[in-house]
Amino acid sequence: MKKALVIFGSTGNLMYKKLIPAIYHLIQQGHIGEDFMVYAVARRNQSFDDYIEEAKNQVKISIDWTHFKQYINYRVLNVDNIDDYRRLNDEIVNKSYNDVSIYLATPPTLFPLISKGISQSGFINKGEKHKRIVFEKPFGEDLESAQSINKELWKYFDETQIYRIDHYLGKEMIQNILVVRFANIIFEQSWDYRSIQAITILAKEEEGVLSRGGYYDKIGALKDMLQSHLLQMAALILMDKPKEMTSDLIKDEKVKIFQSMTFDQKDMLLGQYKGYTDSEKVDRNSSTETFVYAKAYVQNQRWHNVPIHFLTGKKLNEKRSEIIIHFKDNHDLNLLFPQSSKVENKLVIKVSPKEGVEFKFNVKEPGLTNNIHPAILDYCHNCKALENTPEAYERLFMELLNDQPTLFTRWDEIEKTWELVKSMKSNSQPIVYNSYEDLLNILEKKEVLIDDL
Amino acid sequence: MKKALVIFGSTGNLMYKKLIPAIYHLIQQGHIGEDFMVYAVARRNQSFDDYIEEAKNQVKISIDWTHFKQYINYRVLNVDNIDDYRRLNDEIVNKSYNDVSIYLATPPTLFPLISKGISQSGFINKGEKHKRIVFEKPFGEDLESAQSINKELWKYFDETQIYRIDHYLGKEMIQNILVVRFANIIFEQSWDYRSIQAITILAKEEEGVLSRGGYYDKIGALKDMLQSHLLQMAALILMDKPKEMTSDLIKDEKVKIFQSMTFDQKDMLLGQYKGYTDSEKVDRNSSTETFVYAKAYVQNQRWHNVPIHFLTGKKLNEKRSEIIIHFKDNHDLNLLFPQSSKVENKLVIKVSPKEGVEFKFNVKEPGLTNNIHPAILDYCHNCKALENTPEAYERLFMELLNDQPTLFTRWDEIEKTWELVKSMKSNSQPIVYNSYEDLLNILEKKEVLIDDL
Ligand SMILES: NC(=O)c1ccc[n+]([C@@H]2O[C@H](COP(=O)([O-])OP(=O)(O)OC[C@H]3O[C@@H](n4cnc5c(N)ncnc54)[C@H](OP(=O)(O)O)[C@@H]3O)[C@@H](O)[C@H]2O)c1
Ligand SMILES: NC(=O)c1ccc[n+]([C@@H]2O[C@H](COP(=O)([O-])OP(=O)(O)OC[C@H]3O[C@@H](n4cnc5c(N)ncnc54)[C@H](OP(=O)(O)O)[C@@H]3O)[C@@H](O)[C@H]2O)c1
Repeated sequence: MKKALVIFGSTGNLMYKKLIPAIYHLIQQGHIGEDFMVYAVARRNQSFDDYIEEAKNQVKISIDWTHFKQYINYRVLNVDNIDDYRRLNDEIVNKSYNDVSIYLATPPTLFPLISKGISQSGFINKGEKHKRIVFEKPFGEDLESAQSINKELWKYFDETQIYRIDHYLGKEMIQNILVVRFANIIFEQSWDYRSIQAITILAKEEEGVLSRGGYYDKIGALKDMLQSHLLQMAALILMDKPKEMTSDLIKDEKVKIFQSMTFDQKDMLLGQYKGYTDSEKVDRNSSTETFVYAKAYVQNQRWHNVPIHFLTGKKLNEKRSEIIIHFKDNHDLNLLFPQSSKVENKLVIKVSPKEGVEFKFNVKEPGLTNNIHPAILDYCHNCKALENTPEAYERLFMELLNDQPTLFTRWDEIEKTWELVKSMKSNSQPIVYNSYEDLLNILEKKEVLIDDL
Repeated sequence: MKKALVIFGSTGNLMYKKLIPAIYHLIQQGHIGEDFMVYAVARRNQSFDDYIEEAKNQVKISIDWTHFKQYINYRVLNVDNIDDYRRLNDEIVNKSYNDVSIYLATPPTLFPLISKGISQSGFINKGEKHKRIVFEKPFGEDLESAQSINKELWKYFDETQIYRIDHYLGKEMIQNILVVRFANIIFEQSWDYRSIQAITILAKEEEGVLSRGGYYDKIGALKDMLQSHLLQMAALILMDKPKEMTSDLIKDEKVKIFQSMTFDQKDMLLGQYKGYTDSEKVDRNSSTETFVYAKAYVQNQRWHNVPIHFLTGKKLNEKRSEIIIHFKDNHDLNLLFPQSSKVENKLVIKVSPKEGVEFKFNVKEPGLTNNIHPAILDYCHNCKALENTPEAYERLFMELLNDQPTLFTRWDEIEKTWELVKSMKSNSQPIVYNSYEDLLNILEKKEVLIDDL
C-alpha cells in the first residue's frame, strides 16, 4: 500500500505543535516512511519553501528538515472550491496512493463543508476501503450540533471510515487501563462496589487559556475536557470486560457505561479563574467555566453507590491528570487493628505528566510497634521506556494508518457523552476563584474527600 | 512492676549472638531499663567480671559495657541442685522483683530438668501471675519427645505461663503478613483458590552447618526449619481471618490449617550437601538432610487445589527467605491479550535478608506496541525504618516482658506441626548435591515451577 496522509488546517497550531513532531518521530524510528507522503493542505497561498520556513519557526522540537522534507508536500486548497479537492485527489490517484487518510485539523465548523468537498470530489467514496477521514475534537458544541454534523457525515461516509480523535486515548496510560484491569486477576476480582469506595478522575492544568481564548470561551471546561477526555477515562475504568478486545466490543461496553451514568446538578461546582475575562478574545462578561467538579454514579450492580468524582480546570495548582481507585477499608479494620488510624489502599493510574501506576497499601510500621501505615509502591512507566514514551499523536497516527479504530471514538460514544453533558448543564454562574485553595475549601464543605484532589 | 529476666545457658552461643544484643538495644532505646535486671545463669564457676570479659569477646556488636553492666548479674547454678534455684529465687524475691521471666537458652534436653527445678524451688508456681517460662526451639525432636516434654511442663505450669520461641514470629515481615492480608481489601478479596495459583515458602541459606554440626546432625532441615519457621509462615498466609487479633483466636486459626494440611511423600526431595559429613561433630555416615523440598495442600474450600511449595536448605546459592503468592492468569488472558507471552502477577513477602513486599503485575510495554509485560513494585521495609528494623529477639523480649503471647507458639501448634513432619518422614536417603543447580534440575523434572526458587 502507498499511503497518503492529507492534513487540512496544516498552518494551524495543532499541526506545528503535535502533528509534525509525531509524524517526524514515526519516520525517524522507521515506523513509517516507505511509500508514505504527507499532503499539508491550507488556504494560504505560499510556496513549499515558505511553508517549511514557517514550520521551522513554529515547531518546537529539533527536526532534520532536509530529511523530513522528502515526506511532505504543501498544497493550497480553498475549502469552498470543489475543483481544488478534485485536483488534489487526481494528483494523489496519479501517484498511485491507494491508502488515503484525510485529517481535518481545522475549526470544527468546517467539518461539514470539507466533508462534503471530500465526498463530492470523489476523494473518498462511501464504503470505499482504505479511505478514511479523521476529525479533530471537539465533535460538535452540544448534543444537537454534534448530531447535525454527524448526520451530514453519514451521508458521505460509512461509520467505519470515520475516525474521531480524542487524543487521550492515544496516551500510554490510558491504553494501560484495560491491561491493568484485565491482565491482573487481583485487580479484576476487586473491581466493584464490594471493594471500591470511590473513583476520582482528574485533569488539572496550571496554565490559563493562553492564546486559545477565542475557542475556549465558546466551549468551557465541561465541554472541552469532561465530555471527551474525562468521560473516556471513566468509561475504560468502569466498563465491563468485553468478550474480546476488538474496537466494537470495547465501545459497546463503554457506551453502556455512558448510558447508565447519572450526574447530579447539586453536586456540581463550576468555577472561573480570576482574570479569565481579561484574556485575549474572551468576552469581558463571559460566564464560561474554566473549572468543573462533578459527581456521578453508575446505575448498575457493579457500581452500586460508588461515587465517581470528576475534576478538571485551568489555573490550578499543578498540571496533573490521573485516575484514583480508592479501595474500601475492610469493615472490621478497626476491630482487627485498633492502631490503624490512617490507612489507605488505593491504585493511582498516572496519565500525565508522570506516567505510571502507584499502589498504596497498608503495612505494619517498621519498629517495635503495631501501628499500621500506608506503603507506596510506584511504577514509573515513562521512566522504563528506553526512549521517551510515544506521544499520543504518534500512537494515533500508527493506528490510523493501520486501519485500527479502537483508539478513536464511535458516534454513539460521542452522542451519549453529549447527552450526559446536557443533563449536567446548570444555569448557575461559575464562582470566581483566585487559587485552587478557594475551590478546595468549597468542595470540602460539600463533603467531597479532597485528599487526592 | 520490677522485672527480672533470668537466662539459663547464658554462656552459650545464642546468648552472645542474639540475646545480649537484643537486650542491649532495648535498653539503649529506652524500651526497658528502669526496674529491670537480667540474671545470666550458667554452670561455669566464674566471677561476674570474667563473664563480662568472655561476653566482650563473643558479642559481635559494639556495646557500652560500663552502662550495660548495671543491668546484668551473673549467677552460677547447678541445674541438678534444687538449692541453687532456691537461693537465686530468694535473691530475686528479696530484691522485690515481682515480674519474672525465666528463659531457657540451653540444650532442649535440659528443658524438663530445669522446669522441674523452677517449679520445685517455688520460682514459678502453677498459675501464678507475672511469672513465665520461655523455651528455645527445638521443642522436642519429634512428636513423641515433644509430647513427653510438654506433659512434664504442664505438671508445673499453666499453658499461659509457657512461652515457646519461634524467632521467625518476631521478624518484622512475619508480623506484617496479617496486616497485608487483612488491612487491604484488595488482598483479602483475592486470597483464595479462585485468584491464587500457588504459594511458595522459601528459606534458603548459603552457609553450611558451621560449628553447629553436633546439634544439626541429630535434627536435619525438616525438623530444624520446616516444622517450625516454614510451617509458621504458611499458617499465617493460609489461615482464615480471626474475629479479633488476639493470641488465642489467631492460634485457633493457625491450628486449623495444620490440621487440614497434607504432604505427599512422592513430591518430596531431600538433599545433603557434598562435604556435610566432613563437618565437625557430624557422623561420617550421616544421612541427615540439609535440604528439603516438599509440596502440601490444604484440604478446605479456600485452598482447593492450590499447591504450597516449601523449600529450605543449607549451602544453597544465596541467603533468602520469602513467601511468594502467585496469582492466577485470568482464564481468558490469551484471548484478550494475544501479546501476553510472559505475564506475571504475584506478591512476594520478603522476610530476610531484605525485608519488604514486592508486587508484580502486568502492564502494557511502553512504546508503540500492545505487548504486555510485568512491572515490579517494590516496597522496602527495612529501608523505611529510621534505624534498622528491630531484630526478631528484640521484639520477642518486648512481647514477653509485656505478657503478650501472640508471637510465641501454643502447644497445639507444636503438636500439629510435629504430626505433619511425622507424616512426611520418608525413609529415602537424601541425594547428595554439589550445588543448588543440581537440586533445581531434579525439581524441574518433578514439574515444580522453579522460577522463584
Ligand atoms: N491546538 C491544540 O492544542 C488542539 C488540541 C486539541 C484539539 N485541537 C483541535 O484541532 C483543530 C485545529 O486546532 P488548531 O489549534 O490548530 O487551530 P488553528 O491554529 O486555529 O488552525 C486551524 C487551521 O484551520 C485553518 N482555517 C481556519 N479557518 C479556516 C477557514 N475558514 N477556511 C480554511 N481554513 C481555515 C487555519 O488556516 P489559517 O492559518 O489560514 O487561518 C489553520 O490551518 C481544532 O478542531 C481544535 O479544536 C487543537
Ligand atoms: N545458637 C543459635 O543460633 C540458635 C538458634 C535458634 C535456637 N537456638 C536454641 O537456643 C538454645 C541454646 O543454643 P546455643 O547455640 O546457645 O547452645 P550452646 O552454645 O550449646 O549453649 C548452651 C548453653 O547451655 C549450657 N549447657 C549445656 N549443657 C549443659 C548441662 N548439661 N548443664 C548445664 N548447662 C548446660 C551451656 O553451658 P556451658 O557453656 O557451660 O556448656 C550454654 O550456656 C538451644 O535450645 C538451641 O536450639 C539456638
